[in-house]
Amino acid sequence: MGFLKSLYNLYFSKDKVLAVRLKSLLGFVPNKTHIYKIAFHHRSNKGLHNGNRIINNERLEFLGDAIFSTVIADYLYQKYPNANEGFLTKMRSKIVKRKTLNKVGDLMELDLIMQQYNYTTMTGSMLGNALEALIGAIYLDKGYKQAHAFITSNILHKYIDINEIEKTDDNYKSILLEWGQKHNQEIQFKLLQKYKQQKRDRFKIAVLINGQNKGVADNFNKTSAEQQASQLACQSL
Amino acid sequence: MGFLKSLYNLYFSKDKVLAVRLKSLLGFVPNKTHIYKIAFHHRSNKGLHNGNRIINNERLEFLGDAIFSTVIADYLYQKYPNANEGFLTKMRSKIVKRKTLNKVGDLMELDLIMQQYNYTTMTGSMLGNALEALIGAIYLDKGYKQAHAFITSNILHKYIDINEIEKTDDNYKSILLEWGQKHNQEIQFKLLQKYKQQKRDRFKIAVLINGQNKGVADNFNKTSAEQQASQLACQSL
Repeated sequence: MGFLKSLYNLYFSKDKVLAVRLKSLLGFVPNKTHIYKIAFHHRSNKGLHNGNRIINNERLEFLGDAIFSTVIADYLYQKYPNANEGFLTKMRSKIVKRKTLNKVGDLMELDLIMQQYNYTTMTGSMLGNALEALIGAIYLDKGYKQAHAFITSNILHKYIDINEIEKTDDNYKSILLEWGQKHNQEIQFKLLQKYKQQKRDRFKIAVLINGQNKGVADNFNKTSAEQQASQLACQSL
Repeated sequence: MGFLKSLYNLYFSKDKVLAVRLKSLLGFVPNKTHIYKIAFHHRSNKGLHNGNRIINNERLEFLGDAIFSTVIADYLYQKYPNANEGFLTKMRSKIVKRKTLNKVGDLMELDLIMQQYNYTTMTGSMLGNALEALIGAIYLDKGYKQAHAFITSNILHKYIDINEIEKTDDNYKSILLEWGQKHNQEIQFKLLQKYKQQKRDRFKIAVLINGQNKGVADNFNKTSAEQQASQLACQSL
């Protein structure tokens, strides 16, 4: 049954061009191609109707945005079994931000599909929104598991460097060091104290700018303490 | 296999008391009772460890919050096939807000379970957070479908009146009318214009307070136009 439906969608349906493109993009042949078609309709295109209502991809985007956020939450929860909720929330907001989605939509060449259904020039955010809508379409067509697989395999593993995101974004230490270099100021990190709390080592670290204390933080993790102290120093500048 | 596991969890495991409670709360016997136990551990309880790390329900809460949001998005998407993305977003934010979750956690009597694992007095927000964590636990134990079923059957249909939420919250018209009654001011809605746009009727409506125009809005929907005009009038008061 599924096989025949795929065959029909690929070779005989009126959306066969879309079905072929989606097969190479998604790795599977969609069942309900009409939903994917909606995902690629930007609101500037008033050509798609359901009765009196003009249809565009904004409702699917609403749905896909939520699913994307949940799958990223799940992924981070598994990947960082010892991270606290604050870290997970921060990591997620770095991943789901508009800029990232726009870039991924562009790398996936969604514009090649979208230009078929729209008459305006594609902007980055239109591609990011279409990507969210596409996730919504996969969810409605094939369910949560397939949407989960698409997000992890075709977005996360392919286009997003988690370790890089973990290190670089909001990296106050590197911001501070760059600032020091640029303005010819000496930045030092000084371990003020190493002590035990709940049987674990804890580090108290100060940031010195030209020998002057500009921020102190403590944490079970040395790097985190440096980051927190750097953040304080950045704020004081 | 599943049957034997259920039997074991209910009658022989060290968490059998929890398993019995969860069966009546969730409608099924959990497989991994230890995850649910975490869901009921507030951060003030430092008694649960994984190696050196103290465990509480905050990571599960992070996960459950995302799942809850997605299931509500899906539910609203299906329930309102003609609503635009703005309406769906607004409805969701009314449903997922903290106050609602706290109330539901209270009505579910999560405090009866939580008092077993915590030594502080249960507050409303602790119950709301535990409810989110519980959703996360169901997801990890039984998958998305079961979490979806729990949220729609045991939360939405049981404790949340969608039609009431749709009508009352953020209802600027009723706020304005109440204000008028209280301060003895006459509130009127005047249809300024009815016209066609994209083949559909569109309404331009003004709010008059004692005959004075205090806000104008137009919309395809008369009630929405009245709401928007009322909002402008409320802001001007």
